[in-house]
Amino acid sequence: MLNQVAQRVQAEALKGFCARVFQEVGVGEEDARLTANILVAADLRGISSHGVAHLRRYVEGLRTGTFVARPSEQVMTEMPVMAVIDAGAGLGQPVSYRAMQKAIQKAKEVGVGFVSVRNSNHHGVVAYYATMALPHDCIGLSMTNASPKVMPTFGRKPTLGTNPLALAAPAGKQRPFVLDMATSAVALGKIEIADQLDRPIPKGWALYKDGLPATDSRRAMDEFKRNLGASLLSLGGAGELLGGHKGYGLAIGVDIFTALLSGAAVSPLTYPKTAEGKPLPANIGHFFGAWRIDCFRPIEEFKKAMDDYQQLLKNVPKVEGQDRIYIHGEKEYEAEERHLRDGIPLNRRVAADLRALAQELQVESIL
Amino acid sequence: MLNQVAQRVQAEALKGFCARVFQEVGVGEEDARLTANILVAADLRGISSHGVAHLRRYVEGLRTGTFVARPSEQVMTEMPVMAVIDAGAGLGQPVSYRAMQKAIQKAKEVGVGFVSVRNSNHHGVVAYYATMALPHDCIGLSMTNASPKVMPTFGRKPTLGTNPLALAAPAGKQRPFVLDMATSAVALGKIEIADQLDRPIPKGWALYKDGLPATDSRRAMDEFKRNLGASLLSLGGAGELLGGHKGYGLAIGVDIFTALLSGAAVSPLTYPKTAEGKPLPANIGHFFGAWRIDCFRPIEEFKKAMDDYQQLLKNVPKVEGQDRIYIHGEKEYEAEERHLRDGIPLNRRVAADLRALAQELQVESIL
Repeated sequence: MLNQVAQRVQAEALKGFCARVFQEVGVGEEDARLTANILVAADLRGISSHGVAHLRRYVEGLRTGTFVARPSEQVMTEMPVMAVIDAGAGLGQPVSYRAMQKAIQKAKEVGVGFVSVRNSNHHGVVAYYATMALPHDCIGLSMTNASPKVMPTFGRKPTLGTNPLALAAPAGKQRPFVLDMATSAVALGKIEIADQLDRPIPKGWALYKDGLPATDSRRAMDEFKRNLGASLLSLGGAGELLGGHKGYGLAIGVDIFTALLSGAAVSPLTYPKTAEGKPLPANIGHFFGAWRIDCFRPIEEFKKAMDDYQQLLKNVPKVEGQDRIYIHGEKEYEAEERHLRDGIPLNRRVAADLRALAQELQVESIL
Repeated sequence: MLNQVAQRVQAEALKGFCARVFQEVGVGEEDARLTANILVAADLRGISSHGVAHLRRYVEGLRTGTFVARPSEQVMTEMPVMAVIDAGAGLGQPVSYRAMQKAIQKAKEVGVGFVSVRNSNHHGVVAYYATMALPHDCIGLSMTNASPKVMPTFGRKPTLGTNPLALAAPAGKQRPFVLDMATSAVALGKIEIADQLDRPIPKGWALYKDGLPATDSRRAMDEFKRNLGASLLSLGGAGELLGGHKGYGLAIGVDIFTALLSGAAVSPLTYPKTAEGKPLPANIGHFFGAWRIDCFRPIEEFKKAMDDYQQLLKNVPKVEGQDRIYIHGEKEYEAEERHLRDGIPLNRRVAADLRALAQELQVESIL
């Protein structure tokens, strides 16, 4: 099976390889290194759908010019509390890294900082940027819009992006809280994995193009890949009964901060094409924010309260069959520890992709 | 039936009545007026679960002292971008109104403003405060934590509040976007209404105290009222399959901004009691934020983009049986128009409550 673990690699080796690949297709040294680090950070945290599995796609984008290898990144507007950056259609990771750095710097100087980014691309796992705030004792927020895959409540056409958002807050003895969520019930990656595992998917994740609940992961993925009209459901599901309009509203909220504030395309209009069907730069928008905690309350008090709160949640009696209550981010921190120790598992498809890229680009393979 | 419309009243008359009731139990003139206006605003917008139906509860709180009628409200910390306010255990509405005013004032001066409030009480419909940003061409954010009613993912005890959040953004020709959502699948009010209508509730809203999915609204409400251990489900439902951990994570996020930043009680610890079981002040926390749009982008551009985005969403083909796609806030704006014209419908229970309060407090009844 394609998702079988073909082999394990050490994070540092994988970062080095990815950075060389990016440089080989024209990306500058600093941006290549940043993008490689952020991709591998996703694999380390067990979110393989947002890690080096994307390397091929980025390389293709850089080759065809929908991603600009050496973009002219520009700060369009700036005040002590905010900035708008035009990413020049470059890779999403390096501009997002710098935008979040800027938000944090502003928070350190004046208490809060917000940066909205336009004309960007896919930037990997959104939580990476929110967590950058943690060593600075700030609360971090990050969001991005994304290609149209989710139908609005009562609609029957993929229109909104999965528009994920992430929120990170530090704790004391406990691990930080790191919420990272698509505003759809699931991200497409979950259906892709079910397809690779030959497993059905539960009703409530997606609809086939005819509007019926999707349960066959292969058929659903096929319809998604061929843009036939299959769509993901919002967090809360179809209709309003279980709150689907809330996931739909959160997706709009993400478009407001990422696209309407920055001038990027709203998610339904990302990834435009020419009249002849040639892909144009995606014009993705991002949003980054930081709040300096000690403006509100002494940091040690905040961290102690966060520890106590986490402990309280973990001590709640469990439902039958479960022996643990999780705090968001915990599973990913544990995966990171495992993968730093044992290496990052790569499935066959990804391993084959990386080997092929090494050969095509004459970069030394690490596999 | 108790929810039958007993009669209709004009908003202005209802505001005047509520304000007199509050003054009669010791609330100052300004705070009485603000609280009355905000309660009636909920009824006007069709959110009767958060309107004058609460008047009796507030009056009881003021009489027994869990709500302080003339609190010493204090700004504890302040910077150009932020403030922390201690509400002195007063009514939640007036302090929230002033806190949001302060956030907006800061946004007008420096671009953004955030105010976290501790030692407060129930403050009605959370969207009221977010929408205060709209006439100032700001994006508004408001959140509040609430009494423990929702179980964490894999837990089986009501622990987190419904912890609602609201986000408001202006448009040009279209109506503003106003998202107002509990982070649970539904607010308790929906089960209460089903109970009053003698209707079952769908699986996915709540669990009985034994952990089984609640479908009998009467039994569920009885268990909630008697604090027997029934719990609401997070947005996304039980477990992680359909994203219940996302609603759970959003509820934690709301506690972080409202309680951990301000020093209020986290939702599991709100509404404390003495060892003898006597209720103490609730120590609810709120959070308010405003972003001045024209720091990021000319306001007319933003509003035009918002109009176009809304139109695009409304034009999406509909699923069978639906002829309209809604933008958040639209239903409430339409209800407001109807209720301003035809009067606010009061059901029998609420009408009876208001009449009884008029008699008890020797305030002239409007019913």
